[in-house]
Amino acid sequence: MSDRELHLNAFLMGVGHHEAAWRHPRTDPRAVDDVAHFQNLGRIAERGTFDSVFLADGVQIWGDVRHSIANRFEPVTLLTAIAQATEHIGLIATASTGFSEPYNLARLFSSLDHISGGRAGWNIVTTAGDRSAQNFNKEANTEHAERYQRAAEFLDVVTALWDSWEDDALVVDGKSGVFADETKVHEINHKGRFFAVRGPLNSVRSPQGHPLLVQAGSSEDGKEFAATWAEAVFTAQQTHEEATAFYTDLKRRVVANGRSADSVKVLPGIVPVLGGTEAEADRLADELTELIVPVRAVRQLSELIGVDLTGHPLDEPVPALPPVTRINGAKSRFELVRDLAEREKLTLRQLIGRLGGGRGHQVVAGTPEQIADHIELWFTTGAADGFNVMAPLLPSGLAEFVDHVVPLLRRRNLFRSEYTGRTLRDHYGLPRPVNRYTEASLTRA
Amino acid sequence: MSDRELHLNAFLMGVGHHEAAWRHPRTDPRAVDDVAHFQNLGRIAERGTFDSVFLADGVQIWGDVRHSIANRFEPVTLLTAIAQATEHIGLIATASTGFSEPYNLARLFSSLDHISGGRAGWNIVTTAGDRSAQNFNKEANTEHAERYQRAAEFLDVVTALWDSWEDDALVVDGKSGVFADETKVHEINHKGRFFAVRGPLNSVRSPQGHPLLVQAGSSEDGKEFAATWAEAVFTAQQTHEEATAFYTDLKRRVVANGRSADSVKVLPGIVPVLGGTEAEADRLADELTELIVPVRAVRQLSELIGVDLTGHPLDEPVPALPPVTRINGAKSRFELVRDLAEREKLTLRQLIGRLGGGRGHQVVAGTPEQIADHIELWFTTGAADGFNVMAPLLPSGLAEFVDHVVPLLRRRNLFRSEYTGRTLRDHYGLPRPVNRYTEASLTRA
Repeated sequence: MSDRELHLNAFLMGVGHHEAAWRHPRTDPRAVDDVAHFQNLGRIAERGTFDSVFLADGVQIWGDVRHSIANRFEPVTLLTAIAQATEHIGLIATASTGFSEPYNLARLFSSLDHISGGRAGWNIVTTAGDRSAQNFNKEANTEHAERYQRAAEFLDVVTALWDSWEDDALVVDGKSGVFADETKVHEINHKGRFFAVRGPLNSVRSPQGHPLLVQAGSSEDGKEFAATWAEAVFTAQQTHEEATAFYTDLKRRVVANGRSADSVKVLPGIVPVLGGTEAEADRLADELTELIVPVRAVRQLSELIGVDLTGHPLDEPVPALPPVTRINGAKSRFELVRDLAEREKLTLRQLIGRLGGGRGHQVVAGTPEQIADHIELWFTTGAADGFNVMAPLLPSGLAEFVDHVVPLLRRRNLFRSEYTGRTLRDHYGLPRPVNRYTEASLTRA
Repeated sequence: MSDRELHLNAFLMGVGHHEAAWRHPRTDPRAVDDVAHFQNLGRIAERGTFDSVFLADGVQIWGDVRHSIANRFEPVTLLTAIAQATEHIGLIATASTGFSEPYNLARLFSSLDHISGGRAGWNIVTTAGDRSAQNFNKEANTEHAERYQRAAEFLDVVTALWDSWEDDALVVDGKSGVFADETKVHEINHKGRFFAVRGPLNSVRSPQGHPLLVQAGSSEDGKEFAATWAEAVFTAQQTHEEATAFYTDLKRRVVANGRSADSVKVLPGIVPVLGGTEAEADRLADELTELIVPVRAVRQLSELIGVDLTGHPLDEPVPALPPVTRINGAKSRFELVRDLAEREKLTLRQLIGRLGGGRGHQVVAGTPEQIADHIELWFTTGAADGFNVMAPLLPSGLAEFVDHVVPLLRRRNLFRSEYTGRTLRDHYGLPRPVNRYTEASLTRA
């Protein structure tokens, strides 16, 4: 394999990423409540030597209860169950900085990292939308920039808690009765604008030191946050041109932050609609589009971009959308959708068809060769360090990707044939963070 | 088996409940960070057809970092891992109402209940102590009565969220595109003194409807809370007389609350120090007492009762303790310790020896016959519905209990030989709660 290694993450969502996946005969929609379904997905991705599996999350019902799969497992517990069914693959859970306490969240991810032997990752989200806030004692959500300010302080606290036990703090000398060296267990005494946390955490440092930090916001605030904190970035990019611009911009910000460009892996989403022939792939794409329930899709689109389009005639052009400065939701996704609608002059029906596959992530229909070509092109021309693979149907779409696309990527010397490392950080080629307290005492010495 | 069935819960704690367990040659103290150790404990308890395993928890470091095992897994994730290694046994996690949000906590336990196929239980604690509060943006903890008021409202919210999907809300009709009947998915619109939560939960109702509700506070506030909410109560009782008084009082309060006496199971803690002979059991008890590190034990005792006894001479009598009204910690445990010290006129060294086995829970050293006699006596004379078994050494003490005491209890027709039910509620002989929204619509009809 060449020095630079492709990274693949399997984004697991219900019975598939296409919004009508559950209506397609190749899925079993009751599986969304079955832990065995998700463990099976973890095993399939591991068979394909994927770096990781990933679960999105929210703290409210998404979409239209009548027509959507609105129920979901809590991700950290579900990944703990997947950890028991797998040996190597990384386990990335989404959790919000908006509505939980850093001490609780630090413990959950530390525990997942311990339980999985160093395979935990945290996809950091700030959570947009008033519906979420209304589940947490608030009438309305806080403003976009402030959400990111809170997130930054949240990360300060959580990473300090993860460092509060130095790696060699445990002594465990039964003879003397000394269990730990108390000089290596630190109060963090954080006092900030949003949080005051004394510490230490009641858990020893986890196998990875810090679980891998992942981020997916692509707004200005989001990119600045990623440049400071993220080690992997999931992003939605519709074209090679946009993807390259995003990749270049993000790496530049990372370097401007004093980090190496390599220290952050950029993974655009890809929805691979696979067929043995192009015609077969197109047929599957059409079948899925046919199954979209327009009323549900328009409601989901409205939530996605933070603009109410329900009631707008389906076969009229998408109306002019407000300026992004008026959007308090997911700003970058709003811009992506607006640009797509304007560029291609889409009607509302056409737009929901285009978004049905991956909510703004790029949909590529084709043969395994064509999908592999697409991946290779983006990987070798500065658009991606890897991909966030979003199979339209689960498990079938992931299994097909593993059985037909992954072998091509291996043959082209782009992707691993076996795991060589043990932790999620190993898979992504990222170092284990030095403990800030150990570092401080070494500097003093 | 007689109509009334004994219930056994295995309280799992590190490598044993005795505070010096980790120094004893029969334990491996490094196992406290090993998920396989806890999975093994789950399997041992399941071999003994225990109703459940249980994990305590706190949101701070307990005790003296130098001499204690201060690190621990987060319980819900650890029980999720144990769920994967077992099939029948119930899984009870402690979580605090003091420092988390009802929506997040409702999801975690719903998820554990889904993942385990209906085996989840929640041991509700309010969390005493300023050290905990200082990890959550506060200088000092709130006052005892207010903690329970918050807990009661927390339960109102969590149970409403668990009911927010009626049991038959899922339709999953691919043909029509209807996933759920939206008239059976309810906003809860809670607005109270401590919380405002809109709902619904983003999870369908879990196999048990509500995870089993467990509680362990034995103060006035604690008992009133238990009478309203608890379905199982863990309690520390030193004598048969005290245990009977507690049992009678609690059942009376439950009935006064309009619930049947049977609807709450009372399980005192028991620390069985087992030996093939009495002399062998006494020798083990002495070995463990010898291994106590006094400075650590006094610090733990001080935390347990909320009175600082560090610095008091070990071989002097325990000093007079303040009135319980001045205690803002675990009031009932304070009274238990005070009564024990006064009744037996103990020195501080003697007191820490007496508490070393089980932090105030009853220690019974003896042969399997003697332990079984003790259990039978308490069970048949109105002192207990079962026991919270706290093995002094783990796994050895639990394995000995399962292999030598459980067979006697089975032979005496007190305890099950196999699981007949599927869920934790089945094991405890407790009904699946009726959904409040279904009930309301039936009443209206």
